[in-house]
Amino acid sequence: MAPQILLFLATLFLSSHAQSDVVVNPIRQLRPLSGAGGHHIKGVSCLSWRLAVETNNLQGWKLVPQSCERYVGHYMLGDQYRLDCETVADAAIEYAKTVKPAADGKDVWVFDIDETTLSNLPYYARSDVQFGAIAYNDTKFNEWVAEGQAPAVPAIRKLYLKVQSLGFKTVFLSGTAEKFTDVRITNLHETGYDKWEKLILKGEDQHGKTAVQYKSDKRGDLVKKGYRIVGNVGDQWSDLIGTNVGSRTFKVPDPMYYIA
Amino acid sequence: MAPQILLFLATLFLSSHAQSDVVVNPIRQLRPLSGAGGHHIKGVSCLSWRLAVETNNLQGWKLVPQSCERYVGHYMLGDQYRLDCETVADAAIEYAKTVKPAADGKDVWVFDIDETTLSNLPYYARSDVQFGAIAYNDTKFNEWVAEGQAPAVPAIRKLYLKVQSLGFKTVFLSGTAEKFTDVRITNLHETGYDKWEKLILKGEDQHGKTAVQYKSDKRGDLVKKGYRIVGNVGDQWSDLIGTNVGSRTFKVPDPMYYIA
Repeated sequence: MAPQILLFLATLFLSSHAQSDVVVNPIRQLRPLSGAGGHHIKGVSCLSWRLAVETNNLQGWKLVPQSCERYVGHYMLGDQYRLDCETVADAAIEYAKTVKPAADGKDVWVFDIDETTLSNLPYYARSDVQFGAIAYNDTKFNEWVAEGQAPAVPAIRKLYLKVQSLGFKTVFLSGTAEKFTDVRITNLHETGYDKWEKLILKGEDQHGKTAVQYKSDKRGDLVKKGYRIVGNVGDQWSDLIGTNVGSRTFKVPDPMYYIA
Repeated sequence: MAPQILLFLATLFLSSHAQSDVVVNPIRQLRPLSGAGGHHIKGVSCLSWRLAVETNNLQGWKLVPQSCERYVGHYMLGDQYRLDCETVADAAIEYAKTVKPAADGKDVWVFDIDETTLSNLPYYARSDVQFGAIAYNDTKFNEWVAEGQAPAVPAIRKLYLKVQSLGFKTVFLSGTAEKFTDVRITNLHETGYDKWEKLILKGEDQHGKTAVQYKSDKRGDLVKKGYRIVGNVGDQWSDLIGTNVGSRTFKVPDPMYYIA
């Protein structure tokens, strides 16, 4: 092995700090930027944690790590979350344009609701919730849902309206309890979700099923009724795995909670 | 809706710039940080692009966008890629510790090779490759593979050694052509991968199969031989989807190329 290659590998792999000033030809020269110049950026481990969450490498986690609460808060309240949602929507729209819906009206896109079409961020940003760094409280969360004041996630509303305009039907499939049906319908209507083929909420008979089982079963029912699931959009991997997941799935970012 | 909630929603959802100074109670106060204070950070769209790649929202892409070449370069040469790989390995190790291998020695972990156990970064960092922003050149890449000088990805080597020490067997499953068998064995040995149950490279008879088909078939062969795939580690989603994917899959970061 040539000495300069050894030097490069030593720099790159034996040290955790890549130093661009010792990188030699034929390595492409890069201007040093914050975070690539050999010094740590505060909060980077939270970035790795979020990536592990978004790729489903981390499963079954109960809480946002306390050391990442501020990081997750800034992410959710800042530009990056919105840009990430826009990128999801744009990728889904590009794909939707490649599919021609059949004349029978059976080509559907399945949308999850919470943190996908509607945002609970006003709730999660509360000081007694801390973006998921405080344990989930069913009573408090249900009180928030009952208010029916969740805003839309704008990028996903754009996707929803676009797939309808392309000739697809839309189905909402949510783990929200059926008792919230009326308030959810009003909430959806008031935030620009005007119509849907089906709105499926979780009935008492589905109790005891995991989200993966429940959503797989409901998608199976759709397929049995002749629907073809063209796209499937959700913030939880439990929306996107299991059976009858659809021809393409789209993961919307959510570093605040995990549903199995 | 209370006026202060309306104000909050207006701030958060009607504007793309969340301004922490108008956020009111009961919203948790956050110190403004770079990127969450209402101004754009250069390169954020590349961050969204990378997230879309890592979550498999973007499929079939041919090239790193030219505008993201420097971003991808800094990511791959800098700390963040190494931290992200460490987080993948740590999540996989935590999972591995929860599984007790049976006495029959049939519990295996499947590892991809390129950008998973071995790194082609010295090749991808070349000025005529530009981290995947220049079209893939089969001849050039094969010349690099034939050199047998790919370094290990240290975090994944740590995982590999750890699962062996926990009593699991390891299998390499790679799309590399079988003609590189000898050089790959030498390369693996020289970088600290000392033993394996099987090393599966792509034979002439597998030509014409996609990576998903080829890898599903080979994993199916393992299962037919009585192996149980406990974990499956790869940088491409084509390593991790299809059939017999294993009880848990782990996505290693790779924003440089896509294999269907």
